[in-house]
Amino acid sequence: MKAITRIIFYDDRDNKFFGEGPCRLLRGIEQTGSLHAAAQAMGMAYSKALRLLNNAENALGFALTTRTAGGRDGGGSNLTPQGKEWLQRYEQYRDACVAANRRLYLEFFPGER
Amino acid sequence: MKAITRIIFYDDRDNKFFGEGPCRLLRGIEQTGSLHAAAQAMGMAYSKALRLLNNAENALGFALTTRTAGGRDGGGSNLTPQGKEWLQRYEQYRDACVAANRRLYLEFFPGER
Repeated sequence: MKAITRIIFYDDRDNKFFGEGPCRLLRGIEQTGSLHAAAQAMGMAYSKALRLLNNAENALGFALTTRTAGGRDGGGSNLTPQGKEWLQRYEQYRDACVAANRRLYLEFFPGER
Repeated sequence: MKAITRIIFYDDRDNKFFGEGPCRLLRGIEQTGSLHAAAQAMGMAYSKALRLLNNAENALGFALTTRTAGGRDGGGSNLTPQGKEWLQRYEQYRDACVAANRRLYLEFFPGER
């Protein structure tokens, strides 16, 4: 058996606004330069991806991505500097939690892997 | 904002078998002496509660509850000694993770509560 840690961020009205889904979406945008491509790679509807982003941005109070709509180049998305910083801090915090919880797992369940 | 920790146990075939749902169900059984009452208190269908329990017991390889079916007393459920021990260890591990992650949260997000 194994124990998995999930970290979920809630805003002050107890609405979820960030976790692994939005994290993967932002990393996908960074890699592809496109919200559409990032959502597609996750098998997520574009409308849902947009909703996740808007929801996170409303809770955080700043823009995570820049979005250029349509036009000859088909538009595109990229992370804002604040978006990059948030994503990095989220991942570092998540990784620290996973590592701490792994150490605790070996302590509480010594016979397990 | 706040960060919530969820701990989810998976078996060796990567199937979830324990987390807050089964934990609350077992605590409810302990308090009410009845799987039916415990499920109802959580707004969970009896069939789902039974499935959660069977799934966890299959993964762990031991019985979590005793079940007495029907009869004049309407049957009943209680935790086995191994069930109590598992539940206690799960809760202690979860609480240790939550506390460790809370400390990390204050470190990574110093301006937040």
